[in-house]
Amino acid sequence: MAITTALYLIPVGLSDSPTSQYIPEYNIEITREIKYFIVENIRTARRFLKKCDKSINIDELTFFELNNHTDLTEVESFLLPLSNGHAVGIMSEAGCPAVADPGALPVAIAQRKGFKIVPLVGPSSILMAQMASGFNGQGFSFNGYLPIESGARVQKIKELENEAYRKNMTQIFIETPYRNNKLIDLLVRTLRPETLLCIASNITDNDQESIITRSAKQWSKQTYNYDKIPTIFLIYHP
Amino acid sequence: MAITTALYLIPVGLSDSPTSQYIPEYNIEITREIKYFIVENIRTARRFLKKCDKSINIDELTFFELNNHTDLTEVESFLLPLSNGHAVGIMSEAGCPAVADPGALPVAIAQRKGFKIVPLVGPSSILMAQMASGFNGQGFSFNGYLPIESGARVQKIKELENEAYRKNMTQIFIETPYRNNKLIDLLVRTLRPETLLCIASNITDNDQESIITRSAKQWSKQTYNYDKIPTIFLIYHP
Repeated sequence: MAITTALYLIPVGLSDSPTSQYIPEYNIEITREIKYFIVENIRTARRFLKKCDKSINIDELTFFELNNHTDLTEVESFLLPLSNGHAVGIMSEAGCPAVADPGALPVAIAQRKGFKIVPLVGPSSILMAQMASGFNGQGFSFNGYLPIESGARVQKIKELENEAYRKNMTQIFIETPYRNNKLIDLLVRTLRPETLLCIASNITDNDQESIITRSAKQWSKQTYNYDKIPTIFLIYHP
Repeated sequence: MAITTALYLIPVGLSDSPTSQYIPEYNIEITREIKYFIVENIRTARRFLKKCDKSINIDELTFFELNNHTDLTEVESFLLPLSNGHAVGIMSEAGCPAVADPGALPVAIAQRKGFKIVPLVGPSSILMAQMASGFNGQGFSFNGYLPIESGARVQKIKELENEAYRKNMTQIFIETPYRNNKLIDLLVRTLRPETLLCIASNITDNDQESIITRSAKQWSKQTYNYDKIPTIFLIYHP
């Protein structure tokens, strides 16, 4: 298959499920043709490519790593293959690239330079949690991580709760997985009792996926253990 | 295949592309087993099901229509099959259900009643435009439609632009397609010249898809025609 020269945004899995569960067949057809990849983590990227198609020859591919250790002045050069007529793919560590990861920078450069950019369909914990939360889907905000310092963190939770009420918008955020329980403890103590909290974990994992919406008061009365489990949090009040 | 009794959120297409381009094979395996559907539009839903699998016998399925004409007190009864051990699917007119459509209500009821809810992967113009915009993916807001009245509309555009700068968050919104050009005219006149505007149209349509980020000033100097084309708008400033 000959593919258009473009920067392709290639989602990877959120769980160990087979690729047929979470990406369209088309993504594999496209990915198979790409020789240049901008990736958050080379090992994860290689493993994902092998999962897509065992016959992909990893050794003939070029990987550019883009993460906290990357010299950002180099990112522009990662797009050079596009100028020479070669497609480039971007893959993050998990889920959809350029959402909650460093992938937006090469996309911004490609936009400035007028390259074609093609997003592919794939799993996004943000969007899937929003769908299953039962919360307002006409308006929602993804806020990334909360501040770490405890005073600022409490203030941010209250600010997001106020926005949920005032603007009628779902507020979504994430936490480093080993601190999930601590965050939930703080949420149930800080939120108004009637505010709804959706805790969505292990998204796309058939056996383990759990997306549960309860009031802060209900959560405070039950036991929970989300430590070290990939989880996303949403708050709202109808 | 025996599937878990759950409320399944089933994305449908945004374009006329084949389903293998925009949904995983797994969605079809699940959809094939479901006999009860809550749908925004019965004709669209039937057409999509036939597209997924021609052998699906549409006549043995039960459809509950959920749109502006639905008596909302009836929605709870649409979930009765779940109490009897049958899976229920939700499909909107286009894209992912319960995002920018009325599907969130049955999901909220299912959450209250403690039913299992399973979101499936599929195309979302919001998420795919965000990925390809080059804008900040660590924070973004989907704001639905802008107000129609012109004073309120200008004020809302300025408010979203201010939030983009102040909170460093991408601001996403939509418009009724036949008014797209008018909205773009207003955006380029209202936004600061350096504010970036991404116009994303025909998402997942191989031949027609176009996702372009330019400054308001650059857009003001070029011709555009997005009327009657499904389009989503994003503003940001780095």
